[in-house]
Amino acid sequence: MEKDPKLFDYIFNPRTVAVIGASPNDIATRAQMQTKLKDRLFFVNPKYKEVMGKQCYPGILDIPKEIDYVIIVIGQAAIPAVLEDCIRKGVKVAQIFSAGYSETGIPEAIEREKALKEQAAGRIRLIGPNCLGVYCPRSGLAIVPEAPTDEGHISVLAQSGSVTEFFSYFAVTKNLRFSKMVSYGNAIDLDGADFLDYLADDPDTKIIAVYIEGAKDPARLSAALSKAARKKPVIAIKGGMTEQGMRAASSHTAAMAGSPDIWKGVFKQTGVLQVNSFDEMVNTVIAFDKTAFPAGRRAALVTNSGGFSVIQLDLCVSLGIEVPRFSDATIDALQALVPRAGTSIGNPLDAWPIFYNVAPKGNVADIIEIVAMDEGIDTLVFHFDQFRYLRRIIGPDIENHMDRLIDLMVEGCERVRDKVGKPVFVSIYLDPYLEDVQDRFYNLTIKKAFVKKGFPVYASLDGAMMALANLYRYAERQVTGDKK
Amino acid sequence: MEKDPKLFDYIFNPRTVAVIGASPNDIATRAQMQTKLKDRLFFVNPKYKEVMGKQCYPGILDIPKEIDYVIIVIGQAAIPAVLEDCIRKGVKVAQIFSAGYSETGIPEAIEREKALKEQAAGRIRLIGPNCLGVYCPRSGLAIVPEAPTDEGHISVLAQSGSVTEFFSYFAVTKNLRFSKMVSYGNAIDLDGADFLDYLADDPDTKIIAVYIEGAKDPARLSAALSKAARKKPVIAIKGGMTEQGMRAASSHTAAMAGSPDIWKGVFKQTGVLQVNSFDEMVNTVIAFDKTAFPAGRRAALVTNSGGFSVIQLDLCVSLGIEVPRFSDATIDALQALVPRAGTSIGNPLDAWPIFYNVAPKGNVADIIEIVAMDEGIDTLVFHFDQFRYLRRIIGPDIENHMDRLIDLMVEGCERVRDKVGKPVFVSIYLDPYLEDVQDRFYNLTIKKAFVKKGFPVYASLDGAMMALANLYRYAERQVTGDKK
Repeated sequence: MEKDPKLFDYIFNPRTVAVIGASPNDIATRAQMQTKLKDRLFFVNPKYKEVMGKQCYPGILDIPKEIDYVIIVIGQAAIPAVLEDCIRKGVKVAQIFSAGYSETGIPEAIEREKALKEQAAGRIRLIGPNCLGVYCPRSGLAIVPEAPTDEGHISVLAQSGSVTEFFSYFAVTKNLRFSKMVSYGNAIDLDGADFLDYLADDPDTKIIAVYIEGAKDPARLSAALSKAARKKPVIAIKGGMTEQGMRAASSHTAAMAGSPDIWKGVFKQTGVLQVNSFDEMVNTVIAFDKTAFPAGRRAALVTNSGGFSVIQLDLCVSLGIEVPRFSDATIDALQALVPRAGTSIGNPLDAWPIFYNVAPKGNVADIIEIVAMDEGIDTLVFHFDQFRYLRRIIGPDIENHMDRLIDLMVEGCERVRDKVGKPVFVSIYLDPYLEDVQDRFYNLTIKKAFVKKGFPVYASLDGAMMALANLYRYAERQVTGDKK
Repeated sequence: MEKDPKLFDYIFNPRTVAVIGASPNDIATRAQMQTKLKDRLFFVNPKYKEVMGKQCYPGILDIPKEIDYVIIVIGQAAIPAVLEDCIRKGVKVAQIFSAGYSETGIPEAIEREKALKEQAAGRIRLIGPNCLGVYCPRSGLAIVPEAPTDEGHISVLAQSGSVTEFFSYFAVTKNLRFSKMVSYGNAIDLDGADFLDYLADDPDTKIIAVYIEGAKDPARLSAALSKAARKKPVIAIKGGMTEQGMRAASSHTAAMAGSPDIWKGVFKQTGVLQVNSFDEMVNTVIAFDKTAFPAGRRAALVTNSGGFSVIQLDLCVSLGIEVPRFSDATIDALQALVPRAGTSIGNPLDAWPIFYNVAPKGNVADIIEIVAMDEGIDTLVFHFDQFRYLRRIIGPDIENHMDRLIDLMVEGCERVRDKVGKPVFVSIYLDPYLEDVQDRFYNLTIKKAFVKKGFPVYASLDGAMMALANLYRYAERQVTGDKK
């Protein structure tokens, strides 16, 4: 099918959208109703006259307007007839949620998919089937009702609906904002390569995160990855990097997985940053989104536990992060402010008393700045996990202390980022199962104070360091590439 | 110093305990007051007549009772005089919290430590300095006020105070119960080898977790590790496995770190299970504490996302966990109960509709049991991360649905563990930063329902699988060892 030059406008900026199979409990129906699309949205379902206060048409042909984009959420048996109506109506793109095609491995389902493809060929463009479709805050297309309606610069492409769903969900808890997100499922028409090509040139996309299970045309996907990675950071997980994983990928989206070695080679050649878990991907995306590239691999760690700082230092080194000694001048400056007993004035700075120091001079902000000013340091990693100690020691005055301490911690990190000009990674440890209300409240308050100022914030130091290591890995490859 | 045969009774079951430097805001003071020790506890501090409602003596010699064990929380300058009083009083063991010794690297502090050691030699036994001392629910000795007062079978030895503090803290959020915990800091007298020797023979200790930075006598520590590991599982982190980590370890507890290769060899020879991060250690301890050893490496995964189950399968395989195909009989039985569209009826079982199925027959409990009955499966890994989907679909009836669903999920896993006789790992994913009150409430409710029935519960599937892999790694080494 020849590509309509306006194809991606229909997808990411449709004038009108219809949900076919709209119903009050349907997620796609409810998700679109939360956004600005609401007034250019049409519902189709012969079972209802009205859904969520909006008129519901028996069929797409009954809608008295042109429709650019449809979201089909009906069972697969009814799809051929509905799709025929869409074609007659002149719909440009149909996103098909329904599963029950080649991913099942059942012969008749594979046949059904083939028939769907033939039916659409040259007449309408398809996303899916077996997918969640598009999230694009600018147009209002949404995958889940909870996702933010404001936009950012991250775009996500995924064969798995869950991956896009989780990313939309993390938008809130991890303060991520997206430009475009596409779950494309079985990809019988538009596939990963098509979207990658578009996102590579999209000025609103600064970072691309990709979850790939396989491709029908690996050479084309490889070329698209390569093109995109030359223009902006592409962070990818390849699902099915083991033989058993390949088997699961094939039963998930019917993808031809291809051998792990081939994929590793593709990522390496194209400059795509391969990551191994979804957590690592999210943490890495946060880093790319929220900090500048560090000038080098040398990090300073400001933490509050000797034992953990030793373990964390080992982890840093194994990830390729250098944690060099501070200069004598830095050590002297720190020794003037930090008690020596029970602390370790070095890198990592294991110095719990700094969190008690909220005096106008020589406070925690000054200490953070001193560390980051060291000329041997490229990045500051700041870890806080001290509330319950502070509460025990400070007692009834804890509220005032925390108010002041939070301001100073954020101020110190702002000085490092904005004045000293070095990237800052923040880790505010929080046990997900923690039920102590005050402890949880203050950790969330600190997290939000850092988030508000645009810092990358992680719930664990391990996550922060893994992301930092990936940022280095990417930055160094770019430099090496330039030299060639 | 010749070992008093009652030495460890004085440590883990002292008749009387004194806190020297007791004060209302001191953590050690408050921690001991929360336990049954309260009535055999004495406070010493010339600044107070009374602390927390208890008489406070000016000096240890003023206490009209014999004192077995003292906790010294005063600054190091006053310690020599106080220690002399303790010796005169006939105190058996002194635990010294104070830092400011060889860990600082300052020559006079190193001298001070040497003098302390000489002062004590042959006259009193020391734990520390620069340590948090002992947590032992049976005797009442405590490190933090928040730790549970009921006992379990896990014992922890750590040169780092934070490691013991964190373990005490996780007792609540991760449902861990301990027999004995010792933070022994600079170890100028009693050291890791002494405590390991004791714990190896201690009938109340079934699992030993160790955080080591180094040892003054590596051969002795190695022998103690070996003795302990022959008798029970020993899970260890070695801090300072990199050159930079060694440097940090030395400035933390003045430990001679020893080369990483030597330590790796020691762990391998002694059968100690080495882990690399504190998270991994905690997750592994949970597994050893709460499940039987699986018969083999073959796991079944019950999950609810296709994309993630592919990534997780890759992770399993890379960790050495096998995720074999189910038998035809299992597949047939599942196909009778699980819709095929949008699911993947295989291993992993990616089947979100099972969480909607709470009917009296063919419900989620039955489905879990079918999976685990497969003869090719040794362990069941059950993952739940579905609440927000359920809420969207089920709508106003969500409370009733969740009540029933939670009962069935737990019942299914109980059948697997107690009737089918296979270990079960449970993962209830919870984003630490999640602020949606209902979502968080139900995830915590599910977690607690599983915890109540004694299952190992993890906040992430990755954590669960890492722990399972370590359990296999340990179990297989034991089997191999037996064969020799």
